[in-house]
Amino acid sequence: MELLKQKIIDEGTVIGDSIVKVDSFLNHQIDVRLFTEIGKEFKRRFDNKTVTKILTIEASGIAVACMTAGYFDVPVVFAKKHEALNIDNDTYQSEVYSYTKNKTYKIRVSKKYISPNDHVLILDDFLANGSAAMGLVEIVRQAGAELVGVGIVIEKGFQTGRTVLKSKNVRLESLAIIKAISQGKVEFA
Amino acid sequence: MELLKQKIIDEGTVIGDSIVKVDSFLNHQIDVRLFTEIGKEFKRRFDNKTVTKILTIEASGIAVACMTAGYFDVPVVFAKKHEALNIDNDTYQSEVYSYTKNKTYKIRVSKKYISPNDHVLILDDFLANGSAAMGLVEIVRQAGAELVGVGIVIEKGFQTGRTVLKSKNVRLESLAIIKAISQGKVEFA
Repeated sequence: MELLKQKIIDEGTVIGDSIVKVDSFLNHQIDVRLFTEIGKEFKRRFDNKTVTKILTIEASGIAVACMTAGYFDVPVVFAKKHEALNIDNDTYQSEVYSYTKNKTYKIRVSKKYISPNDHVLILDDFLANGSAAMGLVEIVRQAGAELVGVGIVIEKGFQTGRTVLKSKNVRLESLAIIKAISQGKVEFA
Repeated sequence: MELLKQKIIDEGTVIGDSIVKVDSFLNHQIDVRLFTEIGKEFKRRFDNKTVTKILTIEASGIAVACMTAGYFDVPVVFAKKHEALNIDNDTYQSEVYSYTKNKTYKIRVSKKYISPNDHVLILDDFLANGSAAMGLVEIVRQAGAELVGVGIVIEKGFQTGRTVLKSKNVRLESLAIIKAISQGKVEFA
């Protein structure tokens, strides 16, 4: 998606050889015009598929999912990362390892909101090592629902996420794939 | 907003005399069709005002803000509740007390994303004691920006949020105001 790649080039800040900060448009400030185009592009890529629910993970994933769900006309469900009083006890659960925070946390989805009849599209802002995506895939599996695929805004193609998802035969669509980060510059696949 | 009130009656679960669980459409599963109407209604209520940015707080607030921002054609900025590596050190900060979790946490917004030229509309899913809303108001004050007002999806009218905001002369627009919860039923203002 050229518009997105250009935005990453124009506004992304490279830190070291593996981090691109995109908080001016993706995960702190949200460029709603860009997100409208992101939503359309996910619809285009998964247009031949039945989707009944979009599953994501708080917090930034919620923006991606909401701006896309309108094009599919389906509800969004977001997995909770943090303990909350207002979630049912009866949940699907899986574990996600965060490399940036160096800790494992539990994610949860109430059993009410994904059923075996659902066709679930997973969306998230970033794919790096695939831990969050695989946590969501595991929740879809527990629900006995059909997994349509995983849609990602920015994939770090030099990390293992794609390999991990492909090993489970998960369809993956990334709108921008970063092949390498070197000398302060981003190189796309 | 009648559609919203009906949804609260149909799907809300009353717990005790102060909690209405609305996770089937507002803060776990998100009813994107309803949110489209919520966005339009906020636009209608603040239509006479210049808005350059919508400010909210993670996580559920992101959905409300994103689904509304399209109608104003402005970016969303969401305050971060949790420590994150990908936020600047140079932030506006304030403190929010959570009654449900019985603890105080810090919220932060990078100084890059709100400037003194901004006209900021604050949006959130719930208003109870007003602590989160006042934390966001404080961030707008620190930025030297103009506060347009606060828009809330569900206000618990029997708690102090409205009084707290009014004491600071903040314009408040709530789409549904719950006057009381008694005998397992919700009563609107």
